[in-house]
Amino acid sequence: MSQVPDVKALVFDVFGTVVDWRNSVARQAAELAKAKGVTLDPIAFADAWRGRYQPQMETVRSGKRPWTILDVLHRESLAALLPEFGLEGKLSEGEIDAFNRAWWRLDPWADVVSGLTRLKRKFIIGPQSNGNIALMVNLAKHAGLPWDVILGAEVVRNYKPVPQSYTDAARILALPPGQVMMVAAHNNDLAAAQKQGLSTAFVARPTEKGPEQKTDLTATGNWDIVARDFNELADRLGV
Amino acid sequence: MSQVPDVKALVFDVFGTVVDWRNSVARQAAELAKAKGVTLDPIAFADAWRGRYQPQMETVRSGKRPWTILDVLHRESLAALLPEFGLEGKLSEGEIDAFNRAWWRLDPWADVVSGLTRLKRKFIIGPQSNGNIALMVNLAKHAGLPWDVILGAEVVRNYKPVPQSYTDAARILALPPGQVMMVAAHNNDLAAAQKQGLSTAFVARPTEKGPEQKTDLTATGNWDIVARDFNELADRLGV
Repeated sequence: MSQVPDVKALVFDVFGTVVDWRNSVARQAAELAKAKGVTLDPIAFADAWRGRYQPQMETVRSGKRPWTILDVLHRESLAALLPEFGLEGKLSEGEIDAFNRAWWRLDPWADVVSGLTRLKRKFIIGPQSNGNIALMVNLAKHAGLPWDVILGAEVVRNYKPVPQSYTDAARILALPPGQVMMVAAHNNDLAAAQKQGLSTAFVARPTEKGPEQKTDLTATGNWDIVARDFNELADRLGV
Repeated sequence: MSQVPDVKALVFDVFGTVVDWRNSVARQAAELAKAKGVTLDPIAFADAWRGRYQPQMETVRSGKRPWTILDVLHRESLAALLPEFGLEGKLSEGEIDAFNRAWWRLDPWADVVSGLTRLKRKFIIGPQSNGNIALMVNLAKHAGLPWDVILGAEVVRNYKPVPQSYTDAARILALPPGQVMMVAAHNNDLAAAQKQGLSTAFVARPTEKGPEQKTDLTATGNWDIVARDFNELADRLGV
């Protein structure tokens, strides 16, 4: 592992790296099912919703459709999923809107708030997520995430791993790419960031995709830092 | 004054409303002059620099030049000012860049940090300033401003008081305009925001432009709230 670079800002992947989207969405799906008198597998529901995430963003990345924020993509996916889970015709449009905001109410991993609070003392910290600004700021309020700035897809008008997602984040912060560290639990996100000159930190989240997770259990690239959690990341960065 | 509306987010003008740009720039101009062995009037320097602010933004608002962030406009103004103040040829390009960041190091009015800290408990708070993101986030780090999100010119790609500056801020927050309250020490900013349906709060900063200030000493419109400072604003909003 190389020497820790002279970093001024840390930008974070959020879904999976900062928050446990799977159990958080499943919890809310179980509440919805109960309220609607429907039986469904809440974990399967969360996985099915998330399963549409990359294909939906790909319609934007490929240029097939114009720039569209993630809240809108999530809502389309949700509406499409309802029949599979016995919820067709059970939710009003307003209830679909409200349930779509399940993504605004995801819970952080246990080390996140304490780790970010330490990192914030020395660094600019912000999400560089595919989530839009309203999603990210409401999620921060829900989860107590002490961001300095919300970057990410809606600011740069691109979805990761498009190269400009990373270089625009550095440009907007008025920093050379190497002074910005991308923090993620996903090796492919770090590989794309590193290719654009950003510094990189890997924090494994081995149960993000459930107890049978097979990918991203360990660092597979030459990242600047590999840490067990955000507190070890803070240790490594000297805060 | 009308009943306080059902507000979810407060967005703030920054230069003058949150920070004392005039004395902060003057302080740094005095330091620069001393370091360079030049005699100048630091307050006149601050006023001259700020005097170029509206004309510079107008070149963008009018469409004469493409979207350009405030750090770039400030630097052009600074370079143009140097001869007037005996600084021509005294600063390297790197020193001009560094001194341009005087705007990243402005001091808040005395009530700001305590007031914002209270408001943050109940509301989403963020700048809706003409400053760019790097300027705003570094200013927040310098001054201890606990923003939830950085909105403003670089996010909406428009300079206030263009109408879309205000409506885009509400759209990005996924809120109806009336649930977003613009907070400013400038009646014209509030008038433009109110015209787009935003709620409004006026906080006078009677010495922003110095002891002889003649404008914006009192509220001149029918704003939802008129408060003496950010703590009274928090009182009025029940936090």
